Amino acid sequence: MTDANPTIELMRQHRSIRQYTEDAVPDDDIASAVAAAQCASTSSNVQAYCIIRVRDAATRARLIEVTGGQEKVAKAGAFFLICADSRRHRLLVERAGGRYRGGLEEFLVGVIDASLFAQNLSLAFESQGFGICYIGSVRNDLKEADRLLALPEGVYPLFGLCVGVPDQDPPLRPRLPVEAVLMEERYPADEVMLAAIDQYDEETRSYFRGRSGEDRDWSGPISTRFTKPGRRDLAAYYHAKGADLT
Amino acid sequence: MTDANPTIELMRQHRSIRQYTEDAVPDDDIASAVAAAQCASTSSNVQAYCIIRVRDAATRARLIEVTGGQEKVAKAGAFFLICADSRRHRLLVERAGGRYRGGLEEFLVGVIDASLFAQNLSLAFESQGFGICYIGSVRNDLKEADRLLALPEGVYPLFGLCVGVPDQDPPLRPRLPVEAVLMEERYPADEVMLAAIDQYDEETRSYFRGRSGEDRDWSGPISTRFTKPGRRDLAAYYHAKGADLT
Repeated sequence: MTDANPTIELMRQHRSIRQYTEDAVPDDDIASAVAAAQCASTSSNVQAYCIIRVRDAATRARLIEVTGGQEKVAKAGAFFLICADSRRHRLLVERAGGRYRGGLEEFLVGVIDASLFAQNLSLAFESQGFGICYIGSVRNDLKEADRLLALPEGVYPLFGLCVGVPDQDPPLRPRLPVEAVLMEERYPADEVMLAAIDQYDEETRSYFRGRSGEDRDWSGPISTRFTKPGRRDLAAYYHAKGADLT
Repeated sequence: MTDANPTIELMRQHRSIRQYTEDAVPDDDIASAVAAAQCASTSSNVQAYCIIRVRDAATRARLIEVTGGQEKVAKAGAFFLICADSRRHRLLVERAGGRYRGGLEEFLVGVIDASLFAQNLSLAFESQGFGICYIGSVRNDLKEADRLLALPEGVYPLFGLCVGVPDQDPPLRPRLPVEAVLMEERYPADEVMLAAIDQYDEETRSYFRGRSGEDRDWSGPISTRFTKPGRRDLAAYYHAKGADLT
């Protein structure tokens, strides 16, 4: 057992691609990537996710606004919305004469299932030679994304995914040291964790110096980002779509 | 661009492994898989996850009880707990003199980040020749899992992961047809979705007939499973760990 294999190499080469050529992503490649991605684990095989391909140019143009100006949402070869999906379960419960009921557990299963699927999908696209970028900023305005795609009850949009032929070659971005992420038996003491983060701050500074000349570390943005909660309307939106987060 | 590549082939071969040999998973393989998995996308690089390796035999024996009798939790070559992690963010906010504040958005980012990481990790282990099984049933009793591992505030356990050398060769499990998962522009009408599920029920029946002789489809278990919410104490547990799901 060795780590020198094509899948691990592919993972190591990941960087989000934010500029794409005008080439389309062929339907066959999409079908093949989705089918492979569906092989990811799913909680008790409930398969609580779906993926909506958005082709319509006007809809994609509106999604640029939803995402705060991310033009790649319209320009990438393909754009998808990834959703947790309780709708299929609802249809089956109702067909059997029952009433669907779910709480935080069922919502979490949907989010986790959808994310495992999405990561397999992203890697499948990358293995085909495409670049990808997750688009969390669809959560800026889920109500509008929902209206544009006429989402039915029980489908909970989580994030978007751009896929296309890369038109840039950005450097790999350093991640936290393994020991700040993989813990042995216990979560480390605060001072141990902070020392590992200090080391990562140095690495991050040197990455940004080389890339853009900026003086930027990891701690700085994090320590301001998490002083106030973002996107305060998510809970109300998901509740209105039928999710119970209690 | 073609789909005949080793990563897609590896995905297609996935089945959860529930029986393992007594072989350990070498530390080098673990470090290499974790480092590759960390290259997965993460929302604005916040890296809101951690993974705790549990080696202690007594703890793993107790985790069998937590998970309702899953002996593989103690027997697999390695066992990990995957968590959403806001703790590093909290430490940095506090070091800068602030107060951490997060809501549903920050919790969701943690769950999604952790799941993208976990799927990369699982596939990395599979690429090394190991088998894996996600263990959602740690959510049966998060309070007890938490007590066993002395989790600090801001660390939210989501699921476990067994990894080891396979001691079984189960068949591949069929998934929903691609057209029931990949939607073009709009979520399909109910009758279209139900027809796709009927087709999948046939495939599922033939899978179980071949495997165990059982007469079992997909719709049946789903239509009873989702009539009452599972694991009702999750929200209170996560709230007590510092998560605000509003």
